[in-house]
Amino acid sequence: VQASGIHHLGVAVEDLEEALATYERLFGAEVEHRATVDGQGVRAVSLRIGEGRVELLEPLGEDTPVGRFLAKRGPGMHHVAYGVADVRAALAELTDAGADVIDEAPREGLFGLQVAFVHPDSVHGVLSEVVSAG
Amino acid sequence: VQASGIHHLGVAVEDLEEALATYERLFGAEVEHRATVDGQGVRAVSLRIGEGRVELLEPLGEDTPVGRFLAKRGPGMHHVAYGVADVRAALAELTDAGADVIDEAPREGLFGLQVAFVHPDSVHGVLSEVVSAG
Repeated sequence: VQASGIHHLGVAVEDLEEALATYERLFGAEVEHRATVDGQGVRAVSLRIGEGRVELLEPLGEDTPVGRFLAKRGPGMHHVAYGVADVRAALAELTDAGADVIDEAPREGLFGLQVAFVHPDSVHGVLSEVVSAG
Repeated sequence: VQASGIHHLGVAVEDLEEALATYERLFGAEVEHRATVDGQGVRAVSLRIGEGRVELLEPLGEDTPVGRFLAKRGPGMHHVAYGVADVRAALAELTDAGADVIDEAPREGLFGLQVAFVHPDSVHGVLSEVVSAG
């Protein structure tokens, strides 16, 4: 896949409002979107930091992907998302390139984005996402 | 600080050439710079992925910051760097905002950049860097 850039950095946090206040105070972050997604077990805020973007993710409970991540590793960077033109085509190319994809087909991510995840074992320990708008 | 965006994502790896090949194959990465910095105990490659940038960091030994990170956490995301106009001014603002800065003054980072690090305890577990060119 030829990615267009880093779409966002996903960060797992214990308290969304506290973390949001920190990013506003330290780095001049501005809120772009907010969402609570029961199906994914997260409350999320998308932040713009200049031209960059950080997604803060607070789990809705311990038995959710982000909740289990926090229990195991503590708060911190959770995933990196690369922009691509077409997630379906990207998934085919990633599979052809030998990557272990978590999502066989694109799914709806936060904020109306089409997304798919690549297993961290295929990217030297980095949970990696490909994302396209709409 | 008003950061201008995500300058790069720093990733700790066990084998630089293997990781580089993965990022080229999966995400269309292109090498921007290479450096071995004995003083920091790393061999590093700066990659462009579209408009984005990833720095791959391989430790020169176990008793280095990245070596200790790998031993404790395994390979994965190590830090995020935000672009700022002036690292010295950013450090003053970060300190005023209550952040625990690791570097009291800007220092030369990889590839001729001026950099300073903020302690992860001040950013909810994320080792954060501010960086400016030259």
